[in-house]
Amino acid sequence: MKPPASSPAPRAEPTDHPAGSLDVRVRRTLKVVVDAAVEVLLEEGWDQVTHARVAQVAGCSKVTVYAHWPNRVDLLRDAFDRLNDATHHVPTGDLGRDLVAELRAFRTELVERRLDRVLAVLADRSASVPELRDVRDRFVADGEQAMRELLEPVMSGSRHEAAVLMLCGAMIHAVLLHGRAPDDATIDAMVGLVLAGR
Amino acid sequence: MKPPASSPAPRAEPTDHPAGSLDVRVRRTLKVVVDAAVEVLLEEGWDQVTHARVAQVAGCSKVTVYAHWPNRVDLLRDAFDRLNDATHHVPTGDLGRDLVAELRAFRTELVERRLDRVLAVLADRSASVPELRDVRDRFVADGEQAMRELLEPVMSGSRHEAAVLMLCGAMIHAVLLHGRAPDDATIDAMVGLVLAGR
Repeated sequence: MKPPASSPAPRAEPTDHPAGSLDVRVRRTLKVVVDAAVEVLLEEGWDQVTHARVAQVAGCSKVTVYAHWPNRVDLLRDAFDRLNDATHHVPTGDLGRDLVAELRAFRTELVERRLDRVLAVLADRSASVPELRDVRDRFVADGEQAMRELLEPVMSGSRHEAAVLMLCGAMIHAVLLHGRAPDDATIDAMVGLVLAGR
Repeated sequence: MKPPASSPAPRAEPTDHPAGSLDVRVRRTLKVVVDAAVEVLLEEGWDQVTHARVAQVAGCSKVTVYAHWPNRVDLLRDAFDRLNDATHHVPTGDLGRDLVAELRAFRTELVERRLDRVLAVLADRSASVPELRDVRDRFVADGEQAMRELLEPVMSGSRHEAAVLMLCGAMIHAVLLHGRAPDDATIDAMVGLVLAGR
C-alpha cells in the first residue's frame, strides 16, 4: 500500500497538499487508529474492537476507519501485528545464562506488556476466526525464534522441538492457566533440566 | 444440595409425587441443562451460553434454567465442572513410560475431548470474569495432579515445579498456539530431557 521510501516525488512544485505531507498525515492517522485498536483490545477485550469504538478512542470519524479497514478482522490483524515487536535478550554466548535471560525477557513481555492477554485472545479466537490463524502463527514463530536459535547448536530434531515447546510452554502455561509467571528459581530449574538432559 | 445417598426416606407411603422420584426427575432435568450448556460452550462459544439458548438446546423452559442458575456465570461454572473429569493413565511404576502415557492421555483429552477449547476459554475469560478463576484453578490443579504425583519421588521444590510446568506447558502451548499437538517422538523427547536432567 505504501510507496517504497526510496521513490522520489517526480516534481517538487509546491501545492496546497503536497503528496509527501498528505501521505505523512494519512499514515499518522492510520497509526493512531491502530494504536486505538490495540488499546481497546487490551483494555476492553476482543468484542469491543468495533469500528465505532476504535474511531471514538482514536478521535476520528467512523468513515475513516471503515475506509481503511472495511472488515473488522483486518483491523484486528493490524493491531496484533503492531503488538508483535517483543524485546529479546541479546545472546552473550553462555548458553545457560542466555536461556535464563531470554525467558526473563519473555516473562516481562507477558506480564508487563500484556502479551499474556494477546496470546489468550489469539488462542481462544483463532479457533472460530480462521483469518486469525496466520496472525497467531507469525506471532508465535517470531516470539520463539530467539529460543530456537539459542538451542540449535546443542540439539536437533525432536529434542530441539521438545526443548523449545517445554521452555516456551512452561511460561505460557503458568501465565495463562496458573495466573502467575514462574519465579526466578523455577526459570533457573527449567533451564537446568533442559541443558542437563541434552 | 443433594441429600446423602444413604439417608432413607422417613416414610414409604405412596403419593402422587413421591419425594424420591421427584428428586430424580429434577436432577435429570438439571443434568440435561448442564449437558446443553457444555454443548453450547464447545460448539458455539462462550458468548452463546445464555439462558435462552441453553433452554432451547435442553428442550426446557427458560424459567427452569433461571430458577436454578439465576446468574449466567454460575451455569458456566457448572458446565466447566462437568467437563473436569479427564481420564488419566494408571501408573505402572516405570517412570519414563508412565510419563509418556500420561502425556498421551492428556493429548487425547486436549484433541478428542476438546479440552483445548475449554482451556482457551478459561485462559481468555478468567482475566475479565474473576468468578471463573477458582474454576480455572481447580481444573488445572486436577489436570496436573497425576503428573505432579509421578514426578514427586524423583524431584522436589523448584525442579519439580519446573518439570510439571514444562511437560504440561509444552502440550498446552503446542495445542493452543501452534494449532497442533506434539507427536509421539516429541513427547518421548520431552520425557527424555526431563528425566535425564533430574
